[in-house]
Amino acid sequence: MNTLVLQTDFGLVDGAVSAMHGVAKQVCPRLEIFNLTHEIPQYDIWSASYRLIQTINYWPKGTVFVSVVDPGVGSQRRSVGIITKNGQVIITPDNGTLTHLINNDEIVEARIIDEVKSRLPHSQESHTFHGRDIYAYNGARLASNEISFKELGEEIPIDSLVSLEIENARIEDGILKGTIDILDIRFGSLWTNIPLSLVKELGISSGQYFYISIHHKNIRVYHNVLQFVRSFAQVDLGEPLVYVNSLTNLGVAINQDSFSKLYNIGYGSDWKIQLRKVDAEVLKQYGIK
Amino acid sequence: MNTLVLQTDFGLVDGAVSAMHGVAKQVCPRLEIFNLTHEIPQYDIWSASYRLIQTINYWPKGTVFVSVVDPGVGSQRRSVGIITKNGQVIITPDNGTLTHLINNDEIVEARIIDEVKSRLPHSQESHTFHGRDIYAYNGARLASNEISFKELGEEIPIDSLVSLEIENARIEDGILKGTIDILDIRFGSLWTNIPLSLVKELGISSGQYFYISIHHKNIRVYHNVLQFVRSFAQVDLGEPLVYVNSLTNLGVAINQDSFSKLYNIGYGSDWKIQLRKVDAEVLKQYGIK
Amino acid sequence: MNTLVLQTDFGLVDGAVSAMHGVAKQVCPRLEIFNLTHEIPQYDIWSASYRLIQTINYWPKGTVFVSVVDPGVGSQRRSVGIITKNGQVIITPDNGTLTHLINNDEIVEARIIDEVKSRLPHSQESHTFHGRDIYAYNGARLASNEISFKELGEEIPIDSLVSLEIENARIEDGILKGTIDILDIRFGSLWTNIPLSLVKELGISSGQYFYISIHHKNIRVYHNVLQFVRSFAQVDLGEPLVYVNSLTNLGVAINQDSFSKLYNIGYGSDWKIQLRKVDAEVLKQYGIK
Repeated sequence: MNTLVLQTDFGLVDGAVSAMHGVAKQVCPRLEIFNLTHEIPQYDIWSASYRLIQTINYWPKGTVFVSVVDPGVGSQRRSVGIITKNGQVIITPDNGTLTHLINNDEIVEARIIDEVKSRLPHSQESHTFHGRDIYAYNGARLASNEISFKELGEEIPIDSLVSLEIENARIEDGILKGTIDILDIRFGSLWTNIPLSLVKELGISSGQYFYISIHHKNIRVYHNVLQFVRSFAQVDLGEPLVYVNSLTNLGVAINQDSFSKLYNIGYGSDWKIQLRKVDAEVLKQYGIK
Repeated sequence: MNTLVLQTDFGLVDGAVSAMHGVAKQVCPRLEIFNLTHEIPQYDIWSASYRLIQTINYWPKGTVFVSVVDPGVGSQRRSVGIITKNGQVIITPDNGTLTHLINNDEIVEARIIDEVKSRLPHSQESHTFHGRDIYAYNGARLASNEISFKELGEEIPIDSLVSLEIENARIEDGILKGTIDILDIRFGSLWTNIPLSLVKELGISSGQYFYISIHHKNIRVYHNVLQFVRSFAQVDLGEPLVYVNSLTNLGVAINQDSFSKLYNIGYGSDWKIQLRKVDAEVLKQYGIK
Repeated sequence: MNTLVLQTDFGLVDGAVSAMHGVAKQVCPRLEIFNLTHEIPQYDIWSASYRLIQTINYWPKGTVFVSVVDPGVGSQRRSVGIITKNGQVIITPDNGTLTHLINNDEIVEARIIDEVKSRLPHSQESHTFHGRDIYAYNGARLASNEISFKELGEEIPIDSLVSLEIENARIEDGILKGTIDILDIRFGSLWTNIPLSLVKELGISSGQYFYISIHHKNIRVYHNVLQFVRSFAQVDLGEPLVYVNSLTNLGVAINQDSFSKLYNIGYGSDWKIQLRKVDAEVLKQYGIK
């Protein structure tokens, strides 16, 4: 028996998520169910993809995740299940929700779910709530071992899975180049796709300074010299900083304020960030030290 | 041992729901507890009633639901428990929360809870949190089989239960007439009380068009010709549609936008909807096909 | 095996809480986890402290609570665990989150957690998410009995724990003087720190009237004569009232409206409230009876 973890863009204000919980409990009354989040912005497949890579490997091996951000429900988009290298299972519409996992080369097997045969009994007249009728139902059957992953459906090529456009971080001419992948929404921090390993490669360490610039669709919307620190409390209240976030990627934040709100910064492939080391001369220009 | 499912208008921002969880776990540490929703709009008994019929039959038989939208807490309104045809149990103030279940003739037995005898020990000086002291406490005792449904209290006539005003959908002179029962809040779709069976009786099938009009307190606030489709993705982004929702009633929506926000449409007995088939002549007037 | 209950200011919109759940389940797959609330206002240690005393004693003895409102994460502030008189366990940054428990003399033992040794394996490069790496991890080890409370770390003096400024309610010259400790946020009621016992000492009983005044930083922002009633429904819709809240302290509210929004009232040590009995003469001035 594995745990079932659900993610949607349905919110918790109505009965949709509870109907999914109920269906899963009907499949197996002893099944344990957790919510990843149900506050994915509506139709935001990119965020759904990010929240999966942010969390799945903190769960025990074999955990079954159901992710339903599904603007194409009822259309020809496929319903799929995948297994990751670490043995996690994900059930989702094949619409880009697996983008980050594909990009990280994490998927080892993919199967298609037959939406006609493998669905909640007596749900045929509903075509708009596959979260309940297809995904929670099949997720629960997998988590409770009522069916094996092979029994989910036909195997499909991993490279047939839909991926959104995604670009990896890199160093070019001594400049760290990356994307603002997502926001730490509640605290307003920017989470980049630049791993700590690239920072180390550039020879930057804690206490030193970065010159950073943020571009939206090639227009520079922010630039400044910021200190690279271990934690927020190392700068004064209201001061900006660069830090290593909880996925060990670079983050940009303000101590006890929202960077994204203050400077109106968003996330996704249109939002690029660059960082480079600064020398004593530049620091002097910025009045530092 | 059955599962306990809680619904309130308390929100999740403070400790109220957690106190209810704790009380239930004190009754029985092995009890499983789920949240239906705690975001019922404050004092909105109609919505509480709707969220129950939306969800309870997706749960295993014998599940115990506690619903607390209780503007009259501490007054003479009764605390009751009921059993449905399918064997679900509901504990709630008798204030209209059972309206849809009563209207659907779903209730087979009702009992009154003695608020003085059947309450959390040592809670006598609190008169404003029956969600914790009466409902979660007795719900947990029922779900854990500490007491039987009969032991909950005296039987009362089903027709003594409080019901809000409710009107059923019908066909009159070839026109489908119903109410906008509730909103799919997050996505802004209108959920009517018109079942698919009435649509079939009228001889409308997928792909055909409806002329629809929406009235608020007898004033027409929207009218248009919309296509009846199986799923949102069958119309263009931003286009309105009529569809069968997840309870197999008619819904009205916009693909990836909020119908209720765009046209300022609400829900409840003041919001009426009418639909009828349109002929080729009318379609031509609306520039369709 | 005890239950683990989590409280943070992280919100539920991203993956942070789910990562904490996952880490706890990795420690012990059978562990049960509940959310107290994750909607503590950001950085609001006072509210975190209040939500703990509001809820912990409604849970079974031995329940393990993790509270993470942690603006100083990564700084020198300590990570601690405590046991209460009732046998509840709390794991938290030592930043004032224990204020109300300390003030109520509830803590019987305190220990410091070694953030270097007692942390999620392989989490050393992250310095900003102790909720996951230190608190959920150690909370789960305690709840699942993987470690005993003694094994958590070195004992520290209870009086070394950080407390915010806090003042107790009292009677002075026949006047009840207290603080607005917190809001019942969703319903807008004011929850004072004045226990029912002081009201009884003053000889006020249900149905009588109080003259109340509210002061913010010593400026009077509200005053009126209100009836002391058992429950909201005893006054008309939209009328103010004084009542005994679910922690048997005095509350001030409006029946089906928000007192805090209508009069712009906040909470915390800057918000003082005074109440005194009124005689027939004053009632006449206010047009009562």
